[in-house]
Amino acid sequence: MRDEFFEKIRRELEEKEKMREEIIVKSRKVRLSSSKAIANVHREDLKAAEEYLNNALYLAEDLLNYREKHPDQFYLAHDALQELVEAYTFTHIVQELKIPERFPVSIPQALLPGMADCIGELRRFALTMMVKGESDEKIRKVVEIMEELYHILIEFDFHDRLTGNLRPKLDVARNSIERTKSDLLSAKLINLLDK
Amino acid sequence: MRDEFFEKIRRELEEKEKMREEIIVKSRKVRLSSSKAIANVHREDLKAAEEYLNNALYLAEDLLNYREKHPDQFYLAHDALQELVEAYTFTHIVQELKIPERFPVSIPQALLPGMADCIGELRRFALTMMVKGESDEKIRKVVEIMEELYHILIEFDFHDRLTGNLRPKLDVARNSIERTKSDLLSAKLINLLDK
Amino acid sequence: MRDEFFEKIRRELEEKEKMREEIIVKSRKVRLSSSKAIANVHREDLKAAEEYLNNALYLAEDLLNYREKHPDQFYLAHDALQELVEAYTFTHIVQELKIPERFPVSIPQALLPGMADCIGELRRFALTMMVKGESDEKIRKVVEIMEELYHILIEFDFHDRLTGNLRPKLDVARNSIERTKSDLLSAKLINLLDK
Amino acid sequence: MRDEFFEKIRRELEEKEKMREEIIVKSRKVRLSSSKAIANVHREDLKAAEEYLNNALYLAEDLLNYREKHPDQFYLAHDALQELVEAYTFTHIVQELKIPERFPVSIPQALLPGMADCIGELRRFALTMMVKGESDEKIRKVVEIMEELYHILIEFDFHDRLTGNLRPKLDVARNSIERTKSDLLSAKLINLLDK
Amino acid sequence: MRDEFFEKIRRELEEKEKMREEIIVKSRKVRLSSSKAIANVHREDLKAAEEYLNNALYLAEDLLNYREKHPDQFYLAHDALQELVEAYTFTHIVQELKIPERFPVSIPQALLPGMADCIGELRRFALTMMVKGESDEKIRKVVEIMEELYHILIEFDFHDRLTGNLRPKLDVARNSIERTKSDLLSAKLINLLDK
Amino acid sequence: MRDEFFEKIRRELEEKEKMREEIIVKSRKVRLSSSKAIANVHREDLKAAEEYLNNALYLAEDLLNYREKHPDQFYLAHDALQELVEAYTFTHIVQELKIPERFPVSIPQALLPGMADCIGELRRFALTMMVKGESDEKIRKVVEIMEELYHILIEFDFHDRLTGNLRPKLDVARNSIERTKSDLLSAKLINLLDK
Amino acid sequence: MRDEFFEKIRRELEEKEKMREEIIVKSRKVRLSSSKAIANVHREDLKAAEEYLNNALYLAEDLLNYREKHPDQFYLAHDALQELVEAYTFTHIVQELKIPERFPVSIPQALLPGMADCIGELRRFALTMMVKGESDEKIRKVVEIMEELYHILIEFDFHDRLTGNLRPKLDVARNSIERTKSDLLSAKLINLLDK
Amino acid sequence: MRDEFFEKIRRELEEKEKMREEIIVKSRKVRLSSSKAIANVHREDLKAAEEYLNNALYLAEDLLNYREKHPDQFYLAHDALQELVEAYTFTHIVQELKIPERFPVSIPQALLPGMADCIGELRRFALTMMVKGESDEKIRKVVEIMEELYHILIEFDFHDRLTGNLRPKLDVARNSIERTKSDLLSAKLINLLDK
Repeated sequence: MRDEFFEKIRRELEEKEKMREEIIVKSRKVRLSSSKAIANVHREDLKAAEEYLNNALYLAEDLLNYREKHPDQFYLAHDALQELVEAYTFTHIVQELKIPERFPVSIPQALLPGMADCIGELRRFALTMMVKGESDEKIRKVVEIMEELYHILIEFDFHDRLTGNLRPKLDVARNSIERTKSDLLSAKLINLLDK
Repeated sequence: MRDEFFEKIRRELEEKEKMREEIIVKSRKVRLSSSKAIANVHREDLKAAEEYLNNALYLAEDLLNYREKHPDQFYLAHDALQELVEAYTFTHIVQELKIPERFPVSIPQALLPGMADCIGELRRFALTMMVKGESDEKIRKVVEIMEELYHILIEFDFHDRLTGNLRPKLDVARNSIERTKSDLLSAKLINLLDK
Repeated sequence: MRDEFFEKIRRELEEKEKMREEIIVKSRKVRLSSSKAIANVHREDLKAAEEYLNNALYLAEDLLNYREKHPDQFYLAHDALQELVEAYTFTHIVQELKIPERFPVSIPQALLPGMADCIGELRRFALTMMVKGESDEKIRKVVEIMEELYHILIEFDFHDRLTGNLRPKLDVARNSIERTKSDLLSAKLINLLDK
Repeated sequence: MRDEFFEKIRRELEEKEKMREEIIVKSRKVRLSSSKAIANVHREDLKAAEEYLNNALYLAEDLLNYREKHPDQFYLAHDALQELVEAYTFTHIVQELKIPERFPVSIPQALLPGMADCIGELRRFALTMMVKGESDEKIRKVVEIMEELYHILIEFDFHDRLTGNLRPKLDVARNSIERTKSDLLSAKLINLLDK
Repeated sequence: MRDEFFEKIRRELEEKEKMREEIIVKSRKVRLSSSKAIANVHREDLKAAEEYLNNALYLAEDLLNYREKHPDQFYLAHDALQELVEAYTFTHIVQELKIPERFPVSIPQALLPGMADCIGELRRFALTMMVKGESDEKIRKVVEIMEELYHILIEFDFHDRLTGNLRPKLDVARNSIERTKSDLLSAKLINLLDK
Repeated sequence: MRDEFFEKIRRELEEKEKMREEIIVKSRKVRLSSSKAIANVHREDLKAAEEYLNNALYLAEDLLNYREKHPDQFYLAHDALQELVEAYTFTHIVQELKIPERFPVSIPQALLPGMADCIGELRRFALTMMVKGESDEKIRKVVEIMEELYHILIEFDFHDRLTGNLRPKLDVARNSIERTKSDLLSAKLINLLDK
Repeated sequence: MRDEFFEKIRRELEEKEKMREEIIVKSRKVRLSSSKAIANVHREDLKAAEEYLNNALYLAEDLLNYREKHPDQFYLAHDALQELVEAYTFTHIVQELKIPERFPVSIPQALLPGMADCIGELRRFALTMMVKGESDEKIRKVVEIMEELYHILIEFDFHDRLTGNLRPKLDVARNSIERTKSDLLSAKLINLLDK
Repeated sequence: MRDEFFEKIRRELEEKEKMREEIIVKSRKVRLSSSKAIANVHREDLKAAEEYLNNALYLAEDLLNYREKHPDQFYLAHDALQELVEAYTFTHIVQELKIPERFPVSIPQALLPGMADCIGELRRFALTMMVKGESDEKIRKVVEIMEELYHILIEFDFHDRLTGNLRPKLDVARNSIERTKSDLLSAKLINLLDK
């Protein structure tokens, strides 16, 4: 009887080890497509960005199936899903100039840090617009959205293990917002002088 | 006799462990209310800010009672009280445009770093005013107060354990002041050109 | 709609944080009772040991309920359950001089390292018997059981995250067995010469 | 008024900084005398050991005065007082072959780890006796005292900040006891064979 | 012309990135087979060990082809080839009781640390033999081979980047040898007493 | 035979170590001459700049010979060659007001970050021209070239190990461009008003 | 004889330890007076600044006596002497608008980083002048001196241990110069528009 | 005049940099010969050991000349001289079975840690003798010398910068002594039984 008990545990662990590898491989693909979507938004190739994003969303659906059956190993997928949230939120904001109403993932450890990292992408995007001399109005809107994201996230003051290490990411995000506002002053000045 | 001696020590430690947990829980509440006060000042909802601040002050009074009886465990409350000092000083300055005469806490490890962090909040506040195009006069006043805070604190050149790690916070503060002055020049120029 | 979505996540996190605290507090109690059971076996007060063990088993039943609902936070209970397995296995072996047929926990991250640590307790127990000059026969049996435990565990060669860091514990166990065999032979000789 | 407030804080910090330095200097002397007492016990010069110990006890009395007035800085003296407890307990046990009834210090962060470290000194002392071929009886008594100390300390399962990091010291102590028992078997055998 | 120049560089980098991924994937397989070979030697299933080893050798041949064409990216394969050297050397020594004359890899950053890690495997192997009560003669031979490996490697006193971080691995190896000698004394004692 | 094998490896490592030292010494000279060329451009001593640059190019030719024979150690020269690319590109642009058609080095890890750092030098150069009140036309051309360099580099989105850590350097460069454009418009206005 | 040898070494170390403490205490006083001199220049109280500076110079003379006798411990004074060089250079430049001809210290590890840090103080000083709307001419002169200091220091391209970690300080200084030039353009424009 | 001053400093630094390189190269040779001496003692080739040691002593004489002229850079030679002390002391003790009366170096940062490391070499040496079954008498003498070295060193309770980080080395040494005594008991027993 004891032998069977341990044999059963061993079979379960073999299964779990296989699952781990599957989660790792599939997560890697989600992460790759997501980061290519972000890169293409920065290059202003929104069509390519959307294709990569849709691919990432498609792959993530499969990945999310592992959550039910192997909740204790699913932490392996968090980083990839966080990148997906970042890509999704960033693409949506650049296209619509507002924060999305729905998100592809509701796991806090992926959703919250993904949104926080999106603030950094928005700073990069705003800077490019400033260099190109685009209208203040749009850039100012982006800065407002950065603040709005920050205020949503600041409410999530929980243990780091529950929020995917949100706290340090929020410090970086706040710094990004400050520096973007400071740059916005310069950009405004340029536009005034150019008139 | 030896047994009684160790039994007494064990009872004291049980008491201390209970006190630690109480201090941690109560500190967390002070910290939360304080940081919500600060967030509401930045959103310009001063009424909400004051409510949170008053709540934090009320909770801190209770927390401070632990200091007398458990001075060796009271370091657990320093971070929360530092946040309270930061919230109190920041709210007061935004409302009155001057440094408060009295402070809710006089423990150096909370008072000094709390005031130093307030300089960073003031930079953030000044930037928002600049982006909104508010009058130079008020912003300039804020910058003067930032410098005044800095000059009060620079006098406290003691061991880090005595000042709550003031030194690195002052380096950050000095940098904030410099960058705010630089931004102020841009803001002033914008105002001149807009006239 | 977005507000509700985030509100829901926040409520879930508040719930999770409460669960974390409950798991931590309850785990602590399981761990305490388990280690007191072990200490009492070493003091040869088997009645007290059993009481503590039964208490630990009773508390663990409640603790295990959290596993279903919060599988991603249940890692917080692993250390305590591992201690319970150790106490259960150790007490059983000292009383029955054989490895139990059933175990109170079948979670590999608690079961496997708990059994491995039990090997160390058995060494300690065997040494006390030797120093007291007890009969070889019983000690030899204990050493055989140590080896048997080792051979059951050596089969579980999986990723450390799946086995609760079994590998280093097995290295320690192997070393314990070797040293105990060495001591056993000295003890044997002492008994022969003393007669 | 604000100026006076900060002036007062500064004077207090100057005073505290002076106190810190005094505590550090005086602690150092206590630590030195205590470790010399221990070294002299190992060299079997008990007279010198006692002189150093008495000196350490005398110096510690003065040091303990700082506790009342500067409880938040008194952590600086813990290491030295721990060494004193170790020296006192070790000397007493070597002379009397029993654990002392009273201790010179009742601060848990010094008392508990000092007693734990004493177990290591007793192992070292027992080994020297074994290499010299002294009678089992006395060595066996020392091993019993090592176990007794261990059982007193194992009851203090509190947060590390309250017990002066007792837990890892107890792991070391337990290991010491095991190895000493193992060596005791060899020593016993040597004595038997030498007869 | 400049465009063509940069286009060419980009194509080269795309090629290199593809190569990197191939090296990573293929290295992972070599590493896996090698560590399974080692595990099987410890389980004394030498047939299985040899199969895994041969598979690893076969896969490594393909992997080594990347060295010529992408010497600057080949560092990615070093860890895997080091594991192969370890597996090869360990299997050979267990079978033949001597150090191999030839090695499957002559890249110093893989060969030298792989041989150093083999010393640790040999300690583990020797300990198992001791527990099983095998003859001193064979164990003593293994210890001699451990020393011989150590003396070969100690001559390679070059910059860490050239030897694959050999130095710290040699410190570990030396410690292994010492502890194995100490264990050998106990084992010898057991054999003597058993006579 | 084994001895010869290890002897051969040792001789190779001795050779490699000698090569490392040669690469380090020669790289240092290339780096020194290159940075002196840059410093002299900033001091507007173009004759001296060219001399230092030619010297650096001459020394680099020799250095590049090590690449063929010791590709795995050539990473030691990358920093120096990067500085050379920076000096070459910077000097060429200041003299000709256009990006060079050819570059002295085509190794991506040196070429790409060297070009990125050149953007920072161009900002510094442009600022000096502005403070001196030189004509907008030339400065504006420099800013255009900064943007052109940036757009060439942004295409190289590969792993950091392949591009010499290009990504963070490009962030710095983008920021430099933005700030220089801002300064340019102040300078423009000053010139208009001063007339 | 061996005893005397070790006794002599111990006496030397006691002496050295006393010297260390003296150097630390005296360095602290030099550092304090120097940083107060700098603070007073920023508050435009040049008289107080000079008093503090003279006091620092007076104390440094005594401190420098330790260099001859304890060259291996004199690194303890470098930070303080660096602060002195910074204070001396800064005060001199603010008063005379030129770099001093002589310096109070010629130890490279104090002189070079002290001069580099002075560039940062000059930026701070220039910013205050700009915010106050002082004439461009004087500010421009300060910026020229910042560049001059930078060009003197850039020549000292030696190992970090020889130059007191000059390299990172120079990067900071160069950044300061750039940002000050950029601010100068804004300030100039404000003055033109205000006219 | 200022130019000459800085020119002089630069020449001094060039000289110092050259000296640094000479000290590094010469130290490396001393270290190499010393560690080869130690290795040869362990292989029981005392003739070779002595040759390497004499070579190390000869090279050290030259190295020590740098101390007078460049005391602030001489820390670069400490590690090598420590190795020399270790080799010298170890060889002397193995040959003469007593601690040397004189030492080749009296710099505390080399002498003290070198002697401490020698205790570890003596353990290694004692273990080899035990495994070979050599007479207790000699091994016991070695253990006594290990203790004697320990008691000499324990008196040097100074700041780590003055003793070359002696403290942690002494903890290791004490542990070595304990374990060697424990092994000595086993060895003694083996010899008794073999009779």
